[in-house]
Order: sequence, then C-alpha cells, then structure tokens
Amino acid sequence: MFRRLLTLEEAKQAIQKYFEAKPLGVEETPLLEAFNRVLAEDVVAEMDIPSFNRSTVDGYAVKAEDTFGAAENKPAKLKLCGTVNVGEKPKITVKRGTAAEIMTGAPMPEGADAVVMFEDTERKNGEVYVYTAVTKDENVMKAGADIKRGETIARQGQFLTSREIGAIAAVGRAKVKVYKIPKVAIFSTGAEITEPGKPLAPGKIYDINAYSLSAAIQESGGKPVYLGVFPDDPVELEKALKTALASADMVVTSGGVSVGPRDVMPTTLSQLGKPGVIVCGIATKPGKPTTVAVISGKPVFALPGHPTSALLIFHLLVRPIIERAAGKKPTENTTIKALTSVRMFPARGRKTFVTVKLKRDSGRWVAEPVPTGLSGAITTILRADGFVEIPENQQFVDEGEEVTVYLLRKALGENLA
Amino acid sequence: MFRRLLTLEEAKQAIQKYFEAKPLGVEETPLLEAFNRVLAEDVVAEMDIPSFNRSTVDGYAVKAEDTFGAAENKPAKLKLCGTVNVGEKPKITVKRGTAAEIMTGAPMPEGADAVVMFEDTERKNGEVYVYTAVTKDENVMKAGADIKRGETIARQGQFLTSREIGAIAAVGRAKVKVYKIPKVAIFSTGAEITEPGKPLAPGKIYDINAYSLSAAIQESGGKPVYLGVFPDDPVELEKALKTALASADMVVTSGGVSVGPRDVMPTTLSQLGKPGVIVCGIATKPGKPTTVAVISGKPVFALPGHPTSALLIFHLLVRPIIERAAGKKPTENTTIKALTSVRMFPARGRKTFVTVKLKRDSGRWVAEPVPTGLSGAITTILRADGFVEIPENQQFVDEGEEVTVYLLRKALGENLA
Repeated sequence: MFRRLLTLEEAKQAIQKYFEAKPLGVEETPLLEAFNRVLAEDVVAEMDIPSFNRSTVDGYAVKAEDTFGAAENKPAKLKLCGTVNVGEKPKITVKRGTAAEIMTGAPMPEGADAVVMFEDTERKNGEVYVYTAVTKDENVMKAGADIKRGETIARQGQFLTSREIGAIAAVGRAKVKVYKIPKVAIFSTGAEITEPGKPLAPGKIYDINAYSLSAAIQESGGKPVYLGVFPDDPVELEKALKTALASADMVVTSGGVSVGPRDVMPTTLSQLGKPGVIVCGIATKPGKPTTVAVISGKPVFALPGHPTSALLIFHLLVRPIIERAAGKKPTENTTIKALTSVRMFPARGRKTFVTVKLKRDSGRWVAEPVPTGLSGAITTILRADGFVEIPENQQFVDEGEEVTVYLLRKALGENLA
Repeated sequence: MFRRLLTLEEAKQAIQKYFEAKPLGVEETPLLEAFNRVLAEDVVAEMDIPSFNRSTVDGYAVKAEDTFGAAENKPAKLKLCGTVNVGEKPKITVKRGTAAEIMTGAPMPEGADAVVMFEDTERKNGEVYVYTAVTKDENVMKAGADIKRGETIARQGQFLTSREIGAIAAVGRAKVKVYKIPKVAIFSTGAEITEPGKPLAPGKIYDINAYSLSAAIQESGGKPVYLGVFPDDPVELEKALKTALASADMVVTSGGVSVGPRDVMPTTLSQLGKPGVIVCGIATKPGKPTTVAVISGKPVFALPGHPTSALLIFHLLVRPIIERAAGKKPTENTTIKALTSVRMFPARGRKTFVTVKLKRDSGRWVAEPVPTGLSGAITTILRADGFVEIPENQQFVDEGEEVTVYLLRKALGENLA
C-alpha cells in the first residue's frame, strides 16, 4: 500500500495495468428481450430475403410481352387463369395470353415476369383488359432484393435498438447472443449512515450514495447489487467486501476512505488479496481519498463519502469500466464546452473540478458554480449538471473563458451534445 | 366507419377527442428500483437535513471565544474533555477552557460552537494547543443547512435519474410513488408473416414489425405485451384483438390495413365496440392505410405493414401517447434541421415523408434519401435515420434546402439535438 497521490491519468493507467476492462461474457437472450443490450455476434442472413419473387402491388401477374403496346384506347386482353394469394405457394402457371390475380406480397406464379396494377385494368366478360404496358420485373421484388444470403445484418458490439431488432427478426432469428450485464455490488460505509426507510437515531444521516450510485450503475449498463450500509469496522467491512466480491463482477463503495482514524477501508482492502490496493488517493479536488483495489481479478472502487464527489469520481473512473464490461463503447460525449460565469481557482497541485449548473445564454452554455463543500450535499446533487475541470498547473480560469465541463449524467450528455 | 383520408393533424385531433392520453395510474416502488421511472408525487423533506449541527472537519470542538487571539506563537491552551464520534449522540458538554476531539460528520457536543482543525492544533501535556482563532460556527454545518423540513426535494412528473434518486434517499424515503408503465399489446397480421425462429414455408416471410415496434414501445416508456402473428381472418383477428384489449392498456398492430380484399382489420375493429374506428386512412406517404380505433376506452393503432412506414407512424402518432400514459412529457426533440442532398417531390395531396440517412457535412446535417418502397424493408430499416417532411401543398423541396427531419429513434434524437 502506497500513499503518494496519483494524478487522474496515472490512476487510470494503474487500473488498466491490473484490470482489463472487457466484456465479461456472452449469453443468449430472446430477441424480444434484447432491447438496450449489446450484440455479441455478427448476425448473418442464412437465406435470401425475400426468398421468392414477390408482387409489390395488387393486380395481375402477366408475361410482360403480352402487354407491350397496350394503351388506354388499345387494351391487351388476357384470359384470367387463377388467383395467387399472399403466403401461399402458387399452384398455377401463367402462359402467353393469360393473367393471374395477385395480391401485394404474394409470390409470383411460374411463367409471370411482371405485375399490372388493378388500377390499370378492367374485368370484362371474363377477360382482363390491360390498359398499360409493363416491362419485365415491373412491380416485382426479386428474391434476395432486400438481403442476400450471407449478408451481415448486424455486427458484434452494436447496441440493439428498434432498428437492429427489426432487422434481426427479418432474417428469422428469435434469439441473439448478447454481452452479459456486469453485476456491480454496492454498499455505503460510515457509523453515521442509515438506510432510508429506517428510523433516524440522533447523530445519524440517511444514505445517499448507494442509491445515487445504483442508478448511475444502471445508466452505465450495469446491474447494481445493493448490499446496504456497513459501519467503519474492520471485521464488518471485511465481511461486506467478501460478500460483494462473491456476488458481483466489481464493487463500488463509498465513505471510509479519508484520513481519520475510522477510515479503515484502504487497510481492509489491502488485506483481502493480491494485488490489493493499486490507487490510494488521487490528485484531484474533489476525489482525493479515492481508493481502488483489484482483488481476485475484480476491481473495487472505494469512492469518497461526499455524494457529489462520489458521483464525479464514478463518472471519471468507474463508468468507462462498466461500459466496456457491458460490451459498449465507452460514452465519449460526456463533456461539453461552456463559458465560465466567474473566475475559478484550482486547489494547489490538484486537478480541480468545480461543481456547476449549466445555463443557456446567447446560444452558448454558461457554467455557473454551485455552492458545494460539506454543507449542501443534497442541494448540490440536485443542482449540479457537471464539473468544470481546472488543470493543476493553471493559476485560475477567468470569467468568460471557455472550459470543459464533465457532465454528471449520461442522459444530460446526450441532450447537450 | 368512414373512408375520407384525414390529414395527420386531423388524425391527431380525432384521437385526442376519443382518448385522453394521461398517466394510467400510480404505484409504489422501492427507490432502488425507481431508476428511469417518472415520479408521481412531490417528495417533501419531513425533517431538517442534517437534523443536527455537524462538524465538517476532523479537529476539536470548542467555544470560539476561547480561541480569540490565538496565533502561531501564542496558542490558546484548552483542556481535553472527551471525544465525539461520528454517528453517536455526544455525551459530553464543552465548557469554557475545554475542547472535545471530534470527527468529520460527528454531531457538535453541547456548549461548543466551532471546530478547530487538527492541522491547527497540537497535543501537549494532556492539553490542546490551538494555534489559530476560529469564529462562531466555523467548520460547523448547521441543522437544516442542506434541506429544511418542508422543502420539496423532487416533484411529480420528474424523471428519476441518479441525482433525484440520491436526493430522495437523503430524506429517508425507501419507497416512492411512480406512474404505472403502460402495457402495450402488439401483434402482426398477414397470411405471409411467420414468427422468427419458426421454419419458413414457401411464400412466407419473417415478421419484422412486432419486434421493431416492441423495442420502440420500450424506447417510449411502455411495456410491450407480445401476442404473435395472426392471419388476416376476421375470426382470428377478432380473437387476437379481444385478447390484446384484455391484456393491455393499448394495442399496436401492423399489416392488414390496405385496400385489398384480405384487409379485414378496419372491418373487424369497427365491430368490436364504441366508438370503434376513428381514423381510417391518413393523407400521408407512407402511412396512408393507418387505422386507429378506440374500443372500451383503449386505443388500437393498426399500422401499415411496411416496416419503415410502421415505425414512422408509430413515432408520429403512438409514441407521444405512450409517453403521456407513462407520465412523461412527450419527447420534443424528435426532429432536427438538415439540408437535402437532392431535390425531393411529395406525393400529390399527401404530406410526404422521404426516408433519409443523415450525414455530417461542414458542421451541418445533410439528409440523403434511402431507397425504399416495398423492395428493401430491411435495408431501409437499417439505414434510415429519419424522414424528411414535405408539406402536401409544396411542389418540391430543392437540393440544399433546409428541411425538418423526423428522427426514427429517440436515442438518435438525443444525440443529434
């Protein structure tokens, strides 16, 4: 266990060195339940689609040459030789001088090579009068015209929306292989933390982090496994961490990582397995006490106790790993450019993130600091849209300067991008 | 049953007249499962938060006046009177001339009105040497400083993300009232339609719509109830519609609405209950055969069979209704502005939607038509980002003209907006 603060980049590299963020596995799911999942295979058409020549209109299937020269005042007269219905294999053959009634989508009968629309015909004395000429293949969709056998419909790594799901159904697949959803165990620590719904004893406060982070885990494509609240006690903590590691693919905790005598998280983590703690503090503000361990090949992220700090560090360090584990491309547009509403100063030697609310002004985004610190956990979490990043080596960011804003919410990122 | 084509706007008004799109009901859910739901109540803090004065640092709780005048070379010397731990009700009282050790987040002991940080103190001979003065309330977070009792934390209609969920947990709520998720029954009709996963007989094609529309229903905030594929047979269709109406809050079907002799959907719908069919055809291209009924107070949307047309009409007519039924504000940004890549013509007398793929060019979106019609259902659904709208009274839209593009995907809307 080492105590030097890593920069944010060094912390990311340390995590990469000990834990490769990649899909956790593949499972088969009914296509009807595949919405919002990530495809884990290339879906290839095993047949031509359509697999037969189809009429694209309601009308008469004919030999095109029988209509050549037909016009409003000079109809071609054909003998009705039968009807072809949708979804049925035609039993008739269209010979020279005959026509078969056909519905949109029905297979072309043998012998016919074009379809005349009903609107261009008339039924008279048992004959079909055709008032227009059609060319070969007119109003016919050829077999394989949509998709050819062997064509790839959807690719590994694609996110499944209504479009991909419709296309995969079209080639006859009722099941698809998708990446497993990463399970992320989550608990909060702290003697003062009480689970919502329970009575609040004097000196206690309700848990925020396990709840907000559970939602953030879902936003990232993971499935939270909620374990509750544990006191900062080495024995209890060790038990909680072992349960968490046994029940999930990774672990997110909050609290218990500061420098006070009760902050037993790093110590407990370093005793649970190799390589143990790999990040013990990062040179950011907020987020300094962030601790990361890898135990039995599973990452454990011990985030700060302050709710907005925990969410920020989650978005910076944890979310990309959950996304990769879910088979997704890590969300790229989690930052936007904005102008500062006031001059902002960094903490000495630490990359500083100032909590801000975003406002629209003359077509630009303006980042306005939200009062934070320990005195407004809820107010901050409700008002903060994101964080302005101030590099550690910069003296200040001036009022009206363009800055990068890290967005706290993926959904927000999508709206503002 | 009437046959006049309504304009898109008239169709919307007709639906509004017979069906009020509003939340279907309220249910209570554990807060941990409330992610992505819509809040159906105002959440009000029932207590001050924090409910007690808290130290915001590790240090010593003191009477501020005892430190007045203290400096690096002139420490105030105080007698240690005890320790206050986090999460515990203090048992001690700080009197003049004394100091109590206190941890970040611990409740202030009686008598103390400020906290001196450890860094500004020294322990010597059983005494606490304080090297700096603190003012009253320094390093103290007062009760109610974050949220006052009676304050509203989150409001009815809010979409629950990590932020709102964290804030609701903070006030001690483990359950919240949310709007019920609308159940939407879905089936496809057509003698040629086969369920994916089953063998494909000659003349048949696999279903696309029930799958793509199931996903679109989920994108809109509904829960699809998949019923399968039914032939265009009045008896079968009536049975399917009755099952659908009994098992869901609304019904979406596709196919069986054109003018051919097999298109029994409108006829069957008009016999099922009052008011029955309220829209029978709309003056759009595609989408002309769209049929809407209201039966026993539940809307039934019978969409065209062509997959991209079905998705377009779903987005125009059905999605806003599912969203309102789910308690959401209907998504507003489902259109974007783009320049056309070629001249586009409307169908005579019908509002025309040209299927397009969007490309980025010199910072603008360019809408490029995707070959569509009956001959490329899958290709179109995979490539189409949206539809360019051409008003019915316009002769054409010129190349390079700015047009409105209706986006096929909500997700896409969020990315492009």
